[in-house]
Amino acid sequence: MTIVIHTIPGSPFARMALLACEEKGVAWRMQPMAPGQHKQPEHLTRHPFGRVPVIEHDGYWLYEAQAIVRYIDAAFDGPALTPNDPKQIGRMSQVMNIMDWYAMPSLTSGIGFNRVVAPIFGIPVNEEAVQAAIEPGRVCLKALEQLLGAQAYFTGDNVSLADLVAVAHLDMIPGTPEGAQLMAGSSLLGWLERMAARPSVQRTAMMRIMAEYAPAAA
Amino acid sequence: MTIVIHTIPGSPFARMALLACEEKGVAWRMQPMAPGQHKQPEHLTRHPFGRVPVIEHDGYWLYEAQAIVRYIDAAFDGPALTPNDPKQIGRMSQVMNIMDWYAMPSLTSGIGFNRVVAPIFGIPVNEEAVQAAIEPGRVCLKALEQLLGAQAYFTGDNVSLADLVAVAHLDMIPGTPEGAQLMAGSSLLGWLERMAARPSVQRTAMMRIMAEYAPAAA
Repeated sequence: MTIVIHTIPGSPFARMALLACEEKGVAWRMQPMAPGQHKQPEHLTRHPFGRVPVIEHDGYWLYEAQAIVRYIDAAFDGPALTPNDPKQIGRMSQVMNIMDWYAMPSLTSGIGFNRVVAPIFGIPVNEEAVQAAIEPGRVCLKALEQLLGAQAYFTGDNVSLADLVAVAHLDMIPGTPEGAQLMAGSSLLGWLERMAARPSVQRTAMMRIMAEYAPAAA
Repeated sequence: MTIVIHTIPGSPFARMALLACEEKGVAWRMQPMAPGQHKQPEHLTRHPFGRVPVIEHDGYWLYEAQAIVRYIDAAFDGPALTPNDPKQIGRMSQVMNIMDWYAMPSLTSGIGFNRVVAPIFGIPVNEEAVQAAIEPGRVCLKALEQLLGAQAYFTGDNVSLADLVAVAHLDMIPGTPEGAQLMAGSSLLGWLERMAARPSVQRTAMMRIMAEYAPAAA
């Protein structure tokens, strides 16, 4: 009944699946791929769009990270990661989609990728992309801060899928020069601290997963 | 208790909200905006990213179309638009996200916008964008056809949010030369026929909504 996660180690989208497993207490195993393998025929049979992650659970295959975390939450016992209140269901889904539509192109691809990921892989840093991400990143962080409000987590007192999706994108941001400036004084820093204290977040940290799985993928 | 939908008439993302209201039997009212108004300060207070739609229901404001349809489904009686089975919850969410990530840039923006929307507004047709959309559009339609399989709807015998989100993107595609060719022989055409027979789909057809609301928006 272990969930097998096919991914390139380090992917923030795969991390969402890992986080959901950890929060629910679901056993998982990573089937690591080297960068590039995700565009090869073998992986295209699992994911026609050639992305990661894909999960496999007892004969059920699924791609798309948001779908994966919703599946894991629905399929397993353990703490509910979706609120019951319709207004909070709306908020959770809103935050999840904000991450896809707005945080991903600005904060994750623009700032996080260039400042954190590119140096690890020896990829040239695209300074123009970093600069272009600052204003949309600011808008995104402000919108998220507004939605967080005075709450501990995005939908209230308990962690939901919104927090898991958001932390996978945001936790590398304050460690970058641009991100540190954008987040100075933001209440999102308190939320990130609360998230960083969770075993699920520690266990799935990008550097930890990469160190653990990189040799197998090489 | 009417849901007020702030949008530019004709938006496929607003149509998802309209479709959900119609399927649930929820009263809605459109607050139309002219193109461009969605980037003005008044709308930016409703939607910091300057997009449409935004809904307002009894003091609750929400943007992001997927979040809106999930809210409408959870908040109101009427037929459930989300399946109970975790595997089908995963499938529904997968289709919804495929529409956002893959159908939107290729089929909707590339082919649908240029072949259907641009001529209506007298916008120059970007033939390069149409051509660039054909291959990714093919991959997307094939993936959707595979997920539909022999089912009547994407999660089985009943319409779910996946069908509503998908029809908002796909119903203009077979009427375009490129779309007709890409969809020739596809089982998605049968699904589109089943969807087209639904009052919700007829009531929210793009041309009908635009004709009804365009004068007020001018």
